[in-house]
Amino acid sequence: MTRTVDLNADMGESFGPWVMGRDAEILEVVTSANVACGLHAGDWDVMAATMASAVARNVGIGAHPGFPDLQGFGRRNMHLPLKSLAHLVQYQVGAAQAMAQAAGGTVRHLKLHGAMANMAAANKDMALACYEAALTVAPEIIIMVMAGTQQQAAAEELGCLSACEIFADRAYNADASLVDRALKGAVIHDPAVAADRVVRMVADGAIHAEDGSRIPTRIDTICLHGDTPTALDIARAVRAGLEGAGITLKTFAGAPL
Amino acid sequence: MTRTVDLNADMGESFGPWVMGRDAEILEVVTSANVACGLHAGDWDVMAATMASAVARNVGIGAHPGFPDLQGFGRRNMHLPLKSLAHLVQYQVGAAQAMAQAAGGTVRHLKLHGAMANMAAANKDMALACYEAALTVAPEIIIMVMAGTQQQAAAEELGCLSACEIFADRAYNADASLVDRALKGAVIHDPAVAADRVVRMVADGAIHAEDGSRIPTRIDTICLHGDTPTALDIARAVRAGLEGAGITLKTFAGAPL
Amino acid sequence: MTRTVDLNADMGESFGPWVMGRDAEILEVVTSANVACGLHAGDWDVMAATMASAVARNVGIGAHPGFPDLQGFGRRNMHLPLKSLAHLVQYQVGAAQAMAQAAGGTVRHLKLHGAMANMAAANKDMALACYEAALTVAPEIIIMVMAGTQQQAAAEELGCLSACEIFADRAYNADASLVDRALKGAVIHDPAVAADRVVRMVADGAIHAEDGSRIPTRIDTICLHGDTPTALDIARAVRAGLEGAGITLKTFAGAPL
Amino acid sequence: MTRTVDLNADMGESFGPWVMGRDAEILEVVTSANVACGLHAGDWDVMAATMASAVARNVGIGAHPGFPDLQGFGRRNMHLPLKSLAHLVQYQVGAAQAMAQAAGGTVRHLKLHGAMANMAAANKDMALACYEAALTVAPEIIIMVMAGTQQQAAAEELGCLSACEIFADRAYNADASLVDRALKGAVIHDPAVAADRVVRMVADGAIHAEDGSRIPTRIDTICLHGDTPTALDIARAVRAGLEGAGITLKTFAGAPL
Repeated sequence: MTRTVDLNADMGESFGPWVMGRDAEILEVVTSANVACGLHAGDWDVMAATMASAVARNVGIGAHPGFPDLQGFGRRNMHLPLKSLAHLVQYQVGAAQAMAQAAGGTVRHLKLHGAMANMAAANKDMALACYEAALTVAPEIIIMVMAGTQQQAAAEELGCLSACEIFADRAYNADASLVDRALKGAVIHDPAVAADRVVRMVADGAIHAEDGSRIPTRIDTICLHGDTPTALDIARAVRAGLEGAGITLKTFAGAPL
Repeated sequence: MTRTVDLNADMGESFGPWVMGRDAEILEVVTSANVACGLHAGDWDVMAATMASAVARNVGIGAHPGFPDLQGFGRRNMHLPLKSLAHLVQYQVGAAQAMAQAAGGTVRHLKLHGAMANMAAANKDMALACYEAALTVAPEIIIMVMAGTQQQAAAEELGCLSACEIFADRAYNADASLVDRALKGAVIHDPAVAADRVVRMVADGAIHAEDGSRIPTRIDTICLHGDTPTALDIARAVRAGLEGAGITLKTFAGAPL
Repeated sequence: MTRTVDLNADMGESFGPWVMGRDAEILEVVTSANVACGLHAGDWDVMAATMASAVARNVGIGAHPGFPDLQGFGRRNMHLPLKSLAHLVQYQVGAAQAMAQAAGGTVRHLKLHGAMANMAAANKDMALACYEAALTVAPEIIIMVMAGTQQQAAAEELGCLSACEIFADRAYNADASLVDRALKGAVIHDPAVAADRVVRMVADGAIHAEDGSRIPTRIDTICLHGDTPTALDIARAVRAGLEGAGITLKTFAGAPL
Repeated sequence: MTRTVDLNADMGESFGPWVMGRDAEILEVVTSANVACGLHAGDWDVMAATMASAVARNVGIGAHPGFPDLQGFGRRNMHLPLKSLAHLVQYQVGAAQAMAQAAGGTVRHLKLHGAMANMAAANKDMALACYEAALTVAPEIIIMVMAGTQQQAAAEELGCLSACEIFADRAYNADASLVDRALKGAVIHDPAVAADRVVRMVADGAIHAEDGSRIPTRIDTICLHGDTPTALDIARAVRAGLEGAGITLKTFAGAPL
């Protein structure tokens, strides 16, 4: 039986004169791109260029909304009423849809960014507010969720098209949460180790936690990074590893959980 | 023969804690609302509320993009490359579409705001860039143009659905440009005078310039303001005057020029 | 024995085209003005005008820094590293000093705004970071603290010039915290009640909590609001009440706690 | 006779997560740093780090204010009333003073950024507004002007401490304006050519225009760039060339024109 998996990365995180990431190179590795929507990164010009590149490479486009916090890159927790959070997501999804359409593409999925994502991973109500908001605007959008978190629980409750994501370069706790970055071994820096680990998890259909336990889960997409040379090496190694194991790399179709 | 005309006003120009305009009252007068899109005014929460009000009142919704200049309210000239200007318009149209859709409505028209509008009224290339950008994202959008300006020339060249606009409270020069605000009589403050003038121009199908000359033009919509008690009085007087003259007030359908 | 007390209010909270508050009227009541510094409200033009008004009325000027969150008016909690928080405060204090100097005045005190203030009231380390930052830039600045909170503890620890503040229109819990706005009686709306309460607390040198308990404290300044007609009525009633009780209204000099 | 000259470069143009320039390397070459003030680049954290580096290297600190246009990096013309422009400059100078003081340094000079600088170079009233505004806040500040432009004329009229600047890598027209970037030879890319040219102009006390003509002028400082490897090479070559010619590199003292 042939397994299929998607590779995703954040993209379009430049702003004005400032360049971030190696989008051209990571675009050759991934099958889905999470495109920043202007409020934590990625102005309209950056969005237009990113959408065009993704369309040209036939990479799936996702809206990647974040908090309105440019200086903090959307990584600082902000506490918004759920209704305001919903509007914030809708605004960004709409902007992304327009920029994708102008580039001849379409927004296929939603992935929350930074602090918004982390807060929603721990708070189902917040995840629900974000996802329902996006679905109101784009009923066919595929919700990308961090496997095993309240994001997944929210998508399950909504019954919407979803894609479950694991991280290529992060160690997991037994409850599917990520090992704290401050702890040793939390972040995987060795491309070979990352690739091997991802292949085993995809083949097994489970997250392999640090303590040796298995957390069975759908694995639809692997989160990669492309902002440093090392990150790119890991991304390429993961891709090569998956291909070597006979796993097909392909943009996810999305399915209810 | 029954004439029909639309009444439009800018709306949703509050931001965060700051309220601008008397949207609830002007919504009872107009048939189209130009909704700010977040960059010169109108954040996502304001947009959501404004869209909902417009839908509830069955008022036509327009995207009202402006320069990214909150402190200057989009009224300061900014010089952007045409390509960047196009992206800027697309971004805002997309955001407006999403917020309208979430409120159960749809964006029917485009009207440029402030300095962007004034610059485009004098520069056909700029108007073309803005309008083509919007049409790429929303092919059925109706382009609202200031009658007799390069905005109109651009819409004519594009052959798109358009609506020609005149101002209720501004005097015109013989070339269809507005009399400089610094000059006496440039702005009409008397509701009765404004109403009478609008009725005569609509009935005549022409702009009546200050020097007595006639500039024949399609008149599809009248621009009103609702940000002061006086502006509201003018708006109501214009509406009453048109109704009294047997002219039907109705959201424009849009037609090529 | 003659008691002296200061009356303070937030001011200069307009932004660009948006007006907030009745600064001209509240300036006739207060003896100190807390001037927003551009990041949650109060752009450079608003600051210039506010500083000039305060100088003209001989009202003491305070820098009133907040989080960089215009849409949320600085009222949403944001989690910044302490070092970044210190820079944020310094930036705003410096801007305020320049605008005050250009208007012929000087920044006498510091008062934190909104969520920054509330978080610092509950977190001494945060208060310390903010106050030390301000003192580095302005060693003679008087730190205005919410009486009985971690703000006061921080100022006490620093030994800096301070001013203790109580609220005219808010009920207190027995631990000197404010009664939750959601609870009945948390906010005082009756000018006479507010005035009477303030006079008694100032005369007694203590906060009078809702449960009848006394919390002895230095009371150097009373926080008033001027953003609504009712708030103005309370402000005027408090001022009249204090004057009637023979208490002198005067900008605080500041003293170590 | 020993000549003395200063070398300046823009610095602190990173923002939030985005890095711009090679500040650490260019700091080893220059004697003055123009520090962005938060509105076109350079947030409070970046400013704090930049000020600290400049203090540590004993490099003169300048406030480098620009238009409030982050996405356009302050390079887009904006048309502000002169009074508002003055407030904008004061706000940024004040913020820079605070950040410099917190780092143990002081703001010695003012240099306008980007479009604000270019507009002021062509418009004496605008230059006057900016410079008078800065002098109100910092009477001893040294105004850095582009030699031969309306900036210089404004500083001359004010009689303030000034420093005249020429560019290391730009060809000049006979009227001291810069050759249009679109024209061949406008920008000098060869480090040896740039160094030789600067040495000759400094030794001669005159700008050498492209057509061979001489424009006598005080030359107090040379503008370098440090944002690319090539720019750094030019900067180092210019420094080596000047030192080789016996010209002392030293922060300017400033003197009336």
